[in-house]
Amino acid sequence: MIKKIVLRDDEMPTQWYNVVPDLPNGVKPPLDPETKQPMGPEKLAAVFPMGLLEQEMSTKRFIDIPEEVLDILKIWRPSPLVRATSLEKALKTKAKIFFKNEGVSPVGSHKTNSAVAQAYYNKQEGVKRLTTETGAGQWGSALAFATSKFGIECKVYMVRVSFDQKPYRKSIMHTYGAQVIASPSNETRTGRAILERMPDTAGSLGIAISEALEDASTRDDTKYALGSVLNHVILHQSIIGLEAKKQMEIAGEYPDVIIGCCGGGSNFAGLASPYIPDFLEGKKIRFVGTEPASCPTLTAGKLAYDYGDVAETTPLLYMYTLGHDFIPPGIHAGGLRYHGMSPIVSAMVREKIVEPVKLHQLECFEAGVLFAKTEGIIPAPETCHAIRGAIIEATRDLNDPKTILFNFSGHGLIDMGSYDKYYAGQLHDYDYPEEEIAKSIANLPRI
Amino acid sequence: MIKKIVLRDDEMPTQWYNVVPDLPNGVKPPLDPETKQPMGPEKLAAVFPMGLLEQEMSTKRFIDIPEEVLDILKIWRPSPLVRATSLEKALKTKAKIFFKNEGVSPVGSHKTNSAVAQAYYNKQEGVKRLTTETGAGQWGSALAFATSKFGIECKVYMVRVSFDQKPYRKSIMHTYGAQVIASPSNETRTGRAILERMPDTAGSLGIAISEALEDASTRDDTKYALGSVLNHVILHQSIIGLEAKKQMEIAGEYPDVIIGCCGGGSNFAGLASPYIPDFLEGKKIRFVGTEPASCPTLTAGKLAYDYGDVAETTPLLYMYTLGHDFIPPGIHAGGLRYHGMSPIVSAMVREKIVEPVKLHQLECFEAGVLFAKTEGIIPAPETCHAIRGAIIEATRDLNDPKTILFNFSGHGLIDMGSYDKYYAGQLHDYDYPEEEIAKSIANLPRI
Repeated sequence: MIKKIVLRDDEMPTQWYNVVPDLPNGVKPPLDPETKQPMGPEKLAAVFPMGLLEQEMSTKRFIDIPEEVLDILKIWRPSPLVRATSLEKALKTKAKIFFKNEGVSPVGSHKTNSAVAQAYYNKQEGVKRLTTETGAGQWGSALAFATSKFGIECKVYMVRVSFDQKPYRKSIMHTYGAQVIASPSNETRTGRAILERMPDTAGSLGIAISEALEDASTRDDTKYALGSVLNHVILHQSIIGLEAKKQMEIAGEYPDVIIGCCGGGSNFAGLASPYIPDFLEGKKIRFVGTEPASCPTLTAGKLAYDYGDVAETTPLLYMYTLGHDFIPPGIHAGGLRYHGMSPIVSAMVREKIVEPVKLHQLECFEAGVLFAKTEGIIPAPETCHAIRGAIIEATRDLNDPKTILFNFSGHGLIDMGSYDKYYAGQLHDYDYPEEEIAKSIANLPRI
Repeated sequence: MIKKIVLRDDEMPTQWYNVVPDLPNGVKPPLDPETKQPMGPEKLAAVFPMGLLEQEMSTKRFIDIPEEVLDILKIWRPSPLVRATSLEKALKTKAKIFFKNEGVSPVGSHKTNSAVAQAYYNKQEGVKRLTTETGAGQWGSALAFATSKFGIECKVYMVRVSFDQKPYRKSIMHTYGAQVIASPSNETRTGRAILERMPDTAGSLGIAISEALEDASTRDDTKYALGSVLNHVILHQSIIGLEAKKQMEIAGEYPDVIIGCCGGGSNFAGLASPYIPDFLEGKKIRFVGTEPASCPTLTAGKLAYDYGDVAETTPLLYMYTLGHDFIPPGIHAGGLRYHGMSPIVSAMVREKIVEPVKLHQLECFEAGVLFAKTEGIIPAPETCHAIRGAIIEATRDLNDPKTILFNFSGHGLIDMGSYDKYYAGQLHDYDYPEEEIAKSIANLPRI
């Protein structure tokens, strides 16, 4: 029986795939928050190294992965492609369900794929210190790991609700030598202003980004790193899909449906993007991006230019957005609590390549527990959204079984507090009210 | 650069290796606790299924792994063999350090290797319910995972100190559907008696074993499972060493030193035992078993027949022991807090095949943090003892670099509370006083 396809170190992709030049009608450029004009790399160079900015703007389809990055990725990559045979059996479906197990990374999620690359390019340009934000803690842990490999200092602004719920995440970042602080914090102008207005706020990724950016732009030795949304992050994550394509080929299978959960979009697009050229050449594939009903960016947001953060300091990105001052409720899939979405995934949705689906918290935890009891691996709450999506597709029409490939973006061993609340009946479903979303969207910048 | 050697599913060993027939002077049989005579399988059949008892007594060198067990092991096995290149660099050593990464299992440790096999043989014989004990929680999680795969009920008696320190471990077991209770508990005669005498006890593996055994022997539908010590457990763990041998061959290397941490002995012997035949044929290999100075079974214990538990209900095993009423201090490597040692490992020490080494807590955490910062993976506190051992060997004589292979028995992502205490300076080194050990050894049963 095929259970798992592994690749050797020397079978790992040595180039990333950049989907941007292949997207019909491309991706709109970021705009300068002051002039509202397209923004060149010069101005962004204050917070990002040129190596990453070149990738951000690149129109090359393939970009070499530096040897030093490959060497670190090889600690855990290539990641296994696993057939969820026991889940299939439990669902009484003839559908074939495959998942790419990104949970094998040192911090348990796909985030390390981009963290290592980002730390590398910063190191190349002599950057001494990086700041970032983290929601569930996956990205913060990943960057802490990556910066420790390159001897770069790291400061993580962690969204308050996760800071309180996930003490082990902090300890992990400390182990790698990073500094961690709850956001909003008293250490930035933005943080102080928000705390004054809302002292009890759960925080949000939008706020934490503002703080990390402010920190980076006020210190010469410091740059900023973002764990999702941007083109270069999705470029780095393409290694997931490139490996999966090879592995599916070895398994003698081709996916009818590709599924991932969407927070900023990077794990989903990382798996999906290498399949886009096949799709554009006429191959029948459905791409399904799942998101929480409590933060329904793709299903209820607007496609427009918006800020990536609350303080309106980021470039304006053309993306699906709930409005940059939208603060989602503190659901336990902290990595999916973001008002915006990667411009690349947004373009895929606009072009009707990707179908967005909103899901409720409880059905996702239920799917996660079923997955743990069948496939044995406990998923992160974010990943439960992908699993729920896969279950829906696998049971949609039992007479027409499909081959499904989803991204197992991370394990949940450090998120057990959320499971405890689920078991205790303390979690509830929540649809963000349409009128509230309309209000926050009404505040979008006029371009 | 060779960073990692992986094997395909179809390269996984299909037989376990049983070291017992190869051990010079063999392993002494267990004795009946009542008659003090060698004990046949009949009496043990009350708590163990015959399939496992046959393995326990077997003199066959190779035993087939059942297809259903292989299918489940393939969720994460074969596990990677990784070269710790960054650690080598940090140590400025020319030694080559390889580790077998057992942390990739669903619950993060090697324990699942035996849990799956034990659940299988119990299922084969119609067992409906299993009881067990757990120290750090690794074994309990593993058995909870394995029983969920076979639809067997599972009750875990978890040593009090770990129960309090590791809340996520409980949630993991709950996710797999197991019941978890702090030991000593009010639910067994043994537990109640101990609580009366020592209401504030931190508990011990010896106590938890008594409780789990009492539970199993008082219910017809229930049998008992042990996560280490016994011959059949070490048989199941031999898959670690069998894979490692293949992988080292592919890497073109042969180990000069093999290292593992020793609690009950199963992870160490699992890696080491397949190399024993080479050693007996004259190959120069050193086998180093590391243990905590606070529970120095191999370095300060006595080789004698002793009970495996506090209530004197287990068969008498011929092993290194600190005395069955020895209660080790609550160090954070809970998996190493056991008064006894596997008879197989004990025989290896007696025959001077294995060198035992005692280590202190702080130097082990220090090694673990260095490992996290270099190799990127945060080790379990138990595993830190193997890493410390590897570092000692790698830096012993810089002019005579060795090839070192150690067992990375598990990751520490669910043990971050221990790291927090280490960072806060709340952990201390402790050598168990010789006179106390002498006292407890004086209580050994007279055979």
